[in-house]
Amino acid sequence: MKYCSQCGGPVQLAIPEGDNRERHVCDACGTIHYQNPNVVTGCIAEWEDKVLLCRRAIKPRYGYWTLPAGFLENGESAQQGALRETLEEANARVELLSLFATFNMPHISQIYMLFRARLLDLDFAPGEESLEVKLFSEQQIPWDELAFPVIGETLRLYFADRARGHFDSHVGDILRQPGSSLREYRVQMLGS
Amino acid sequence: MKYCSQCGGPVQLAIPEGDNRERHVCDACGTIHYQNPNVVTGCIAEWEDKVLLCRRAIKPRYGYWTLPAGFLENGESAQQGALRETLEEANARVELLSLFATFNMPHISQIYMLFRARLLDLDFAPGEESLEVKLFSEQQIPWDELAFPVIGETLRLYFADRARGHFDSHVGDILRQPGSSLREYRVQMLGS
Repeated sequence: MKYCSQCGGPVQLAIPEGDNRERHVCDACGTIHYQNPNVVTGCIAEWEDKVLLCRRAIKPRYGYWTLPAGFLENGESAQQGALRETLEEANARVELLSLFATFNMPHISQIYMLFRARLLDLDFAPGEESLEVKLFSEQQIPWDELAFPVIGETLRLYFADRARGHFDSHVGDILRQPGSSLREYRVQMLGS
Repeated sequence: MKYCSQCGGPVQLAIPEGDNRERHVCDACGTIHYQNPNVVTGCIAEWEDKVLLCRRAIKPRYGYWTLPAGFLENGESAQQGALRETLEEANARVELLSLFATFNMPHISQIYMLFRARLLDLDFAPGEESLEVKLFSEQQIPWDELAFPVIGETLRLYFADRARGHFDSHVGDILRQPGSSLREYRVQMLGS
């Protein structure tokens, strides 16, 4: 950020009065520009013993498999966002059951909120951002071709919970050094 | 938003290619400026049968009681944010136990994430943004002097769960018409 979005004047990094962090502050009009993490919302859509994955038609990780999910928009709830993303990416209609996993990714200032959901019919098809949309049983999951660590970690928790017959609401962090490979990360769950 | 934070040029509302929503787009450099909801993170800090509330020394709702909570910052997890806010507002140290309530407030594009926490000692005191910090039993909660609907709804769920001996992870929406009074709102919980 170099310029003030309110008046067009130059911004400087400064710690505002009563604050304890550097913010972009406008020299001219004094507006303080806060920058905060983004929420990514999506779902694990179940059909019998299978879950729905989408193969990405966009960067990053073009061609890799992911859960339907995307950035939460202003004016919507995380649940509405999960339904919208599932419709946009997989043309699939679901009923949300519970918040299954909340994963912080502080190195990129994102929080994933992934809901457990019930697919309402088999009438799904790739949206513009997907090459392919498909149901996978646990044995069929393409573990080595998943787009992001958060997807693999969520699916592992999901199948473990399903095996023991009870779904928890999991909260954890996916910790990665900026610039490191996607395979190098550490998971830290709340309460463990 | 009137000006581009990257180049200082004027922005227009337009639907970018491949998108389906209006964004602020820069005429000069083409940067798309996304605006997304903010996360508010905090906790219900328990000590025996009591919970910790802070009386606000800041607007809005100066003088009203709230749970320690505030905006999640870039580079931190929701858990770290909850610990930091509890330290800043109440000088209190806690151990987080679980994510207790996630409340969407789509009318102001905020999501509250409130953790259940154990107060580690009684050595707390008002921070700069608090007039007073105090432990309250269920009977002592100043229900009519709570700062925001989300605080009352969270405390009601908390005491109900405590009474039945099991804490769930609750997800819901607090729905309010813009400009309506703080008492006029509707709650919609996921799964109910």
